[in-house]
Amino acid sequence: MSLPNHFELLATDGAARTGRLITPHGVVRTPAFMPVGTAGAMKGLHWRDVRDAGADIVLGNTYHLMLRPGAERIAALGGLQQFTGWNGPMLTDSGGFQVMSLSALRKVTEDAVTFRSHIDGARVELSPERSIEVQRLLGSDIVMQMDECVRLPAERADIERAMRLSLRWAERSRRAFETAPPGYMLFGIVQGGDVAELRHASARELVDISFHGYAVGGLAVGEPQSVMLAMIEEVAPLLPADRPHYLMGVGTPEDMLEAVSRGIDMFDCVMPTRNGRHGVAFTRLGQINLRNARHAEDPRPLDEESGWPATRNTSRAYLHHLVKSGEALGAMLLSEINIAYYQRLMQDIREAVAMGSFEEFYQLTRAQWARGDIAPR
Amino acid sequence: MSLPNHFELLATDGAARTGRLITPHGVVRTPAFMPVGTAGAMKGLHWRDVRDAGADIVLGNTYHLMLRPGAERIAALGGLQQFTGWNGPMLTDSGGFQVMSLSALRKVTEDAVTFRSHIDGARVELSPERSIEVQRLLGSDIVMQMDECVRLPAERADIERAMRLSLRWAERSRRAFETAPPGYMLFGIVQGGDVAELRHASARELVDISFHGYAVGGLAVGEPQSVMLAMIEEVAPLLPADRPHYLMGVGTPEDMLEAVSRGIDMFDCVMPTRNGRHGVAFTRLGQINLRNARHAEDPRPLDEESGWPATRNTSRAYLHHLVKSGEALGAMLLSEINIAYYQRLMQDIREAVAMGSFEEFYQLTRAQWARGDIAPR
Repeated sequence: MSLPNHFELLATDGAARTGRLITPHGVVRTPAFMPVGTAGAMKGLHWRDVRDAGADIVLGNTYHLMLRPGAERIAALGGLQQFTGWNGPMLTDSGGFQVMSLSALRKVTEDAVTFRSHIDGARVELSPERSIEVQRLLGSDIVMQMDECVRLPAERADIERAMRLSLRWAERSRRAFETAPPGYMLFGIVQGGDVAELRHASARELVDISFHGYAVGGLAVGEPQSVMLAMIEEVAPLLPADRPHYLMGVGTPEDMLEAVSRGIDMFDCVMPTRNGRHGVAFTRLGQINLRNARHAEDPRPLDEESGWPATRNTSRAYLHHLVKSGEALGAMLLSEINIAYYQRLMQDIREAVAMGSFEEFYQLTRAQWARGDIAPR
Repeated sequence: MSLPNHFELLATDGAARTGRLITPHGVVRTPAFMPVGTAGAMKGLHWRDVRDAGADIVLGNTYHLMLRPGAERIAALGGLQQFTGWNGPMLTDSGGFQVMSLSALRKVTEDAVTFRSHIDGARVELSPERSIEVQRLLGSDIVMQMDECVRLPAERADIERAMRLSLRWAERSRRAFETAPPGYMLFGIVQGGDVAELRHASARELVDISFHGYAVGGLAVGEPQSVMLAMIEEVAPLLPADRPHYLMGVGTPEDMLEAVSRGIDMFDCVMPTRNGRHGVAFTRLGQINLRNARHAEDPRPLDEESGWPATRNTSRAYLHHLVKSGEALGAMLLSEINIAYYQRLMQDIREAVAMGSFEEFYQLTRAQWARGDIAPR
């Protein structure tokens, strides 16, 4: 039986789409970039800045939150939105990906993953059902099924085994979500690595199970960009056009522009905040590494035409000084500047698709990135 | 010859005072607390939050800024106000204190201090004249004379030697400042440790030299609070009543309230931001250590009657989680909460003095701190 649809497709332009996703905590304009607030906080940003930058929705990591402060505690405090003060739409991952990348002594069985907490070494079991329970305790607007994600390159047999397991977990997740109140959503995740045939099978079977939305997982995990884009091309046409399509863990501005042009609606990535902490700014003129000595005496802002105050008003010389001095303000400003750029890119894409000028926008934007930053004075 | 006066005393109540100090970059309401932006940045705060919290003036550390990015570079970029984007009044210390506490292989002679930079080991010489030059290159509104500060307890002979040297450096600083443009100010610094007689001599001779304002240095360097307050009582009556009185490096809210009641107008301290980074909040109800497990499930804000949004809206449970998780947002929020509390205390003091109700405010505030925080639910 098909789940109710909360997505409204407003316009398409080629394969690019723009729409609105209605969640219990508000409306998400798509294409949407979801900043990652791993442990209930956005590294280096105030929530008001996340919102002011134009983010409609953020992502929380179930793995971190279930270990500290704990899902039951967050539920007792009114859920993640009230606990953090973000008070807007929130998507949570299943926790499975971080179990694989962060925890020790993990063991995957048909039933569940068991692992030791990276915080206190406690033994924890995470099953598809418990993942749904935890995400519902957190109050997540969009709950992700638990899956197994294989890093690439990998053997086809390993990819297929994980994909099949993920499908069985998808069914169990769907059943576990049946008692969720109306308006809350569950997304299935297409796996299948870099094997088109497996991607097709995964997508078709997920659609048969039926979800509120569909994610493409297991990409941006070591493969070249060309492979990632090829896999999106294989999968996106098989996903219901009336449902949101989410590319997990992606990516650079270029990755996102390419993925939108292939039918993707939603993204999440730590890159804008992580690179910001490392002194790198994303701008209309491409990436700018503020550690570089050529910025030390450059009074120009990163982009004097930006609509974001910190991007338009802060000199490169000051940012260089902050980064070199290890001042927290450097990471704070660059994280905010990057999140604002990502959101502005999404806004520009939404407008271009709505006006039917996406192809022109795509060409112009790529040309500007390729031309890169202008030389310092 | 007396220097022009830029301070306007608006009201007194007992020894407590309120006034306005006119600087080239704006008006400073006194009593004033100056947050410390060591290396051209306020740790964990955006400049807009420093201003919104009610700070009229901030302090920059000459030692850090002369080493990185360098005074000449900051001058070429338009001065510290333009470089940082703070764009308001700024006081800089002389650099001498940090040379003593941070640098290696320092050597003090009559002429200057030589030391090795803690950043790159380079040999640097700082004389009273060079300190004035550096501070003028930075564009500081209020320049401090270079002095030698002795940690307490200390022998009287050592205290006296440093005090005499500081007086000779005061004279040299005064001469070096003679070419400064109108409106910029130079403050002399009273030394003399915990010896009343030496404090008297230092204050009298500084007043003879004449400065735009007078600081009390060499306190809050290891002595009990009672000794600090006794020394302020010895010094403040000897300082010209029509000039600002600045107690350097102080302190807790209680220290400041006591010092105001003894005639002090200006303060600076890293405590609100440093303690914020360590999980401690300053509030109307005293200090609250958010690391404490009793806050883990407490949905109440730090102070629901606070005028500062983060103080009024952020739950203790969330702050506890952020501090325990080492999330940057915890330090950011607590630093901002503490700066806002310090500024609010100054505002309340200014109003009480202006209304002639300082004694009542003093008693009420001390009683509230003593009663402390209410028990968790």
